[in-house]
Amino acid sequence: MSEKTWRIGVAGLGTVGAGLLTFLADRPDFAPAGGRAVVTGVSARSRSRPRPFDISNLPWFDDPVALATSPDNDVFVELIGGSDGPAKAAVEAALKLGKPVVTANKALLAEHGAELAVLAEANGAPLVFEAAVMGGVPAVKMMREALVGDDVNSVAGILNGTCNYILTEMEQGGRPFAEVLAEAQRLGYAEADPTMDVGGFDAAHKITLLAALAFGCAPNFAAAEIEGIDQIELLDIKMARDLGYRVKLVASADRSADGVLVRVHPSLAPLSHPLAQAGGALNALFIESQRIGRIFVQGPGAGAGPTAAAVAADIADVMTGAVRPVFQRPATTLRPFTPVDPSKSMSRAYLRFLVKDEPGVIAAVSETLAEAGVSIESFLQKPVENSEGVPIVLTTHAVAESVLTAAIDRIANLSSVLDRPRLLRIARI
Amino acid sequence: MSEKTWRIGVAGLGTVGAGLLTFLADRPDFAPAGGRAVVTGVSARSRSRPRPFDISNLPWFDDPVALATSPDNDVFVELIGGSDGPAKAAVEAALKLGKPVVTANKALLAEHGAELAVLAEANGAPLVFEAAVMGGVPAVKMMREALVGDDVNSVAGILNGTCNYILTEMEQGGRPFAEVLAEAQRLGYAEADPTMDVGGFDAAHKITLLAALAFGCAPNFAAAEIEGIDQIELLDIKMARDLGYRVKLVASADRSADGVLVRVHPSLAPLSHPLAQAGGALNALFIESQRIGRIFVQGPGAGAGPTAAAVAADIADVMTGAVRPVFQRPATTLRPFTPVDPSKSMSRAYLRFLVKDEPGVIAAVSETLAEAGVSIESFLQKPVENSEGVPIVLTTHAVAESVLTAAIDRIANLSSVLDRPRLLRIARI
Repeated sequence: MSEKTWRIGVAGLGTVGAGLLTFLADRPDFAPAGGRAVVTGVSARSRSRPRPFDISNLPWFDDPVALATSPDNDVFVELIGGSDGPAKAAVEAALKLGKPVVTANKALLAEHGAELAVLAEANGAPLVFEAAVMGGVPAVKMMREALVGDDVNSVAGILNGTCNYILTEMEQGGRPFAEVLAEAQRLGYAEADPTMDVGGFDAAHKITLLAALAFGCAPNFAAAEIEGIDQIELLDIKMARDLGYRVKLVASADRSADGVLVRVHPSLAPLSHPLAQAGGALNALFIESQRIGRIFVQGPGAGAGPTAAAVAADIADVMTGAVRPVFQRPATTLRPFTPVDPSKSMSRAYLRFLVKDEPGVIAAVSETLAEAGVSIESFLQKPVENSEGVPIVLTTHAVAESVLTAAIDRIANLSSVLDRPRLLRIARI
Repeated sequence: MSEKTWRIGVAGLGTVGAGLLTFLADRPDFAPAGGRAVVTGVSARSRSRPRPFDISNLPWFDDPVALATSPDNDVFVELIGGSDGPAKAAVEAALKLGKPVVTANKALLAEHGAELAVLAEANGAPLVFEAAVMGGVPAVKMMREALVGDDVNSVAGILNGTCNYILTEMEQGGRPFAEVLAEAQRLGYAEADPTMDVGGFDAAHKITLLAALAFGCAPNFAAAEIEGIDQIELLDIKMARDLGYRVKLVASADRSADGVLVRVHPSLAPLSHPLAQAGGALNALFIESQRIGRIFVQGPGAGAGPTAAAVAADIADVMTGAVRPVFQRPATTLRPFTPVDPSKSMSRAYLRFLVKDEPGVIAAVSETLAEAGVSIESFLQKPVENSEGVPIVLTTHAVAESVLTAAIDRIANLSSVLDRPRLLRIARI
C-alpha cells in the first residue's frame, strides 16, 4: 500500500468542518489504502471565532479560491455550502487544476452538477459528495457503485431530518407546527431561517442528486416538484392516523416510459411501512431496482459525527486512486431527463376540506368527484368541536395530477364547501 | 474513461453464474468507468447440463485452476463455493499471478481469508467479495469503504434467508420446523442437505467476514459461537410472541475491552424492532459505530438477480483501478482477535422448561436462580393442553454466559423440573 502523505485543504469550518478536522487530527492514517491525510490549509468566514479545535497552526486562507488552487494541498474539501458564490468558484478552480474535490454541497451539485461533472472528468479530477445526501448513511456510494449491476426504477425516502423531527414531534406531542418549529430551532434541529428545510428545498436538492445517480441523467433541480411541511396541520396528522397512515415529507424519483418524475411532497405512508417507522431525525431510503428488488436503508442524516465520517470516507476513496465518473455515467453522456407530463403523473391522494353541516353535501361532493374522473377509495366525515363546518377527509385511487388539480378546483367551487381542499399525496412506496 | 475490454473468466455456473452471464451478455458496457466486460472462459462440473444461456461458444475449462491461470482473462470470478478444494486452489492460483479475483465464497474467506488477503495484497491483486454476504445488499462495500471514517462497535443482523423464511413461516402458519423445512426445500429456499443454513454455519461464515471488516481483525471462523434453528419449537415462537418478541437467527459481532464476540444464535428480537420486522427471505443488518451511530439496511440476501448484481458491481470496482486492502486494513496488520472469555460475555436470556404440576415449584425455581446469580426479568407460567407438565418461560436480566450455563444445570437438576431448559438469547440490538 501507499506511504504517501495526502495534503488536505478544508474550506468551511462549521459543524461538518469541525468534525472533520477533529477526526483527521486523531486519525491521520485512517485510510486503509495506506498513507496519511493531513490538513495543510483552511478557510472560513471567521478566523477568530471560538472553535472546538485549534487552527492557529494551520495556514489560513481568507479566499477559498486561493486555498483550492494552492499547490500545498492535494485534495480540496468544500464545506462552505450554497449553490453559487465562493463554493462554486472554489470547486471549479480546483477541478480545473485536476485536483480531487470532496464536497457536502447538495445545492451546488443539484443546480450545477452536470457542468461540474464535465469539468471534473475532462480534467481527470475525482468529484465525490457522500456527505451531500443522508449524512452518515452511504446512499451516494450505494447508488453510484453498488447498483451499477442493476437498473434502478425508483428511489423514495425521507431526506431531511429537520422535517422528520418536526412531523414526529407534532404527532407524538399533539403540538402544532409553529410551536414544534420554534422548539426545533432552540434545540439546533432547525436553522434560524428554516425555509430550505421546511420548504422542502433541501430534500429536493438531495433527491435531484439521487435521481441523477439512479437514472444516469443530468441533475435537473429545476424540474423537481417541491412542497414543504409548513402547511401541515395537526388535524391532517390525526386524520391520516385514523386512516392508517403517517405524514412524512417524502422525496421520490421515478423512472417510467413517460420520463422521470422528481418530487418532494408531504405524503401519507402506511403505518407499518419502514418509511413510516423511521421517526425523529432519521433519514431513510428505499431503492427499487430490476434485479435486486428493494433495498431499504436508514440512519442519521445529519450532525457533525455522521457527516464528517462521510467526508472522511470520500477522502479515503480518493486515496485509493479509483477513477470513476461523478455520476453513474460519463458526464458527456448525461442526458437531461424528460420531466413527466403532469397529465400522466399518477398519484393516490388524500383530500381534506370543510363543508357546511347541511343535507346533500356528501352527494354533491361524490358526484363532483365522479364527474371529474376521480374514484374515491375511502371517505371519512367526522364532526369536530368548535368548528364552523364539518371536516371531510377522503382518499382517492390513482389519478393523473392534472385530473386531481381540476377536481380540487371543482370541489372548492361548491357552495357547500367552505375552504380550498388540502391535498396530500399518498406515497407510492 | 477507459476503452479497455476486460476479459472475465467465470468458474461455477449455478444460480449466480447464470445470473452473471445473462447480465454480462445483455450489458457488456455496464461499468461506468468505461470499457467492456466480456466473458472469455467458463468452468463448471458439468458442461452439458441444460442452462438458461448458451455457453457453447465460450472456451471451456474442465479445470478451474487452468481457467484462473489462463492468460486469456483479466479477472477471475469464483462462484464454485466451498472453503477448500477447487475454489481455494483456483483463487490462490489467480492471486499468485496478480490477477483480480471476484468471489461469492463466504466459506473460503471465513476460513482462509487472512492468508488469501496476504497473498492478494503481496501480488497487488484485488480480492473482492460483495456477493459473499447479504446478496444484493451492499454490506461488504459499506463496511469496507463507507465506514472507514468511523469506529464500528458492533454489527448484528439476519444473514441467512433460508432460516428467516422458515422462522417466518413457522410463526405465520403455526407449523412445526420439519414441515416448513420440507416445504422450503420443495420451493428451492433450502438445500437438499440444509445443514449449512439451518445449522447456522452459513450465517456464521458471513458474520465472520463482517467482523473482520468491522474491527480490522483477521477473519476467525473457528472462534464463532454457532447455534442454528433446528431445535426451535412452535411453542417458543408462541411464548416469545406473548412476551413481545419474535424469534430470529441473529448473527452478531461485538467489540469491547474484553475482546471480540462473534456469535450466531436463535434470538428474541422485540416485535417493533426493525430486525423483527424483516421477515420472509430478507436479510437485514444493524451497524453501530462511534461517530455515525446506527445504520440499518435490509434487502434480498440471495437469488440469481441480487447476487449477480453484486458480482457485477465488484467487477465494475475492479475496472476502476481502485487499490484497497481486502479487509479494512492491510493484510499484514490484521490481528487475530481475542475471543471474549465466556465468563465475561453478558446476555439476557429466555428459558423454557417443563415442571411438575405441584406446589412449591415456582419457589424452588426462583430460589435456584437467585442462588445462581440470575436475576429474573419476566416470568410466565401457562398450562398447556395435553402436556405432562406445565411450561414455565422466563427472561433474565443480563448475565454472564458461564453463570447462565451453571444456572441451567441447577434448574435441570431440580426434581420438579422435567426437562433440560431450552435457552434462547435475547438479542442485544
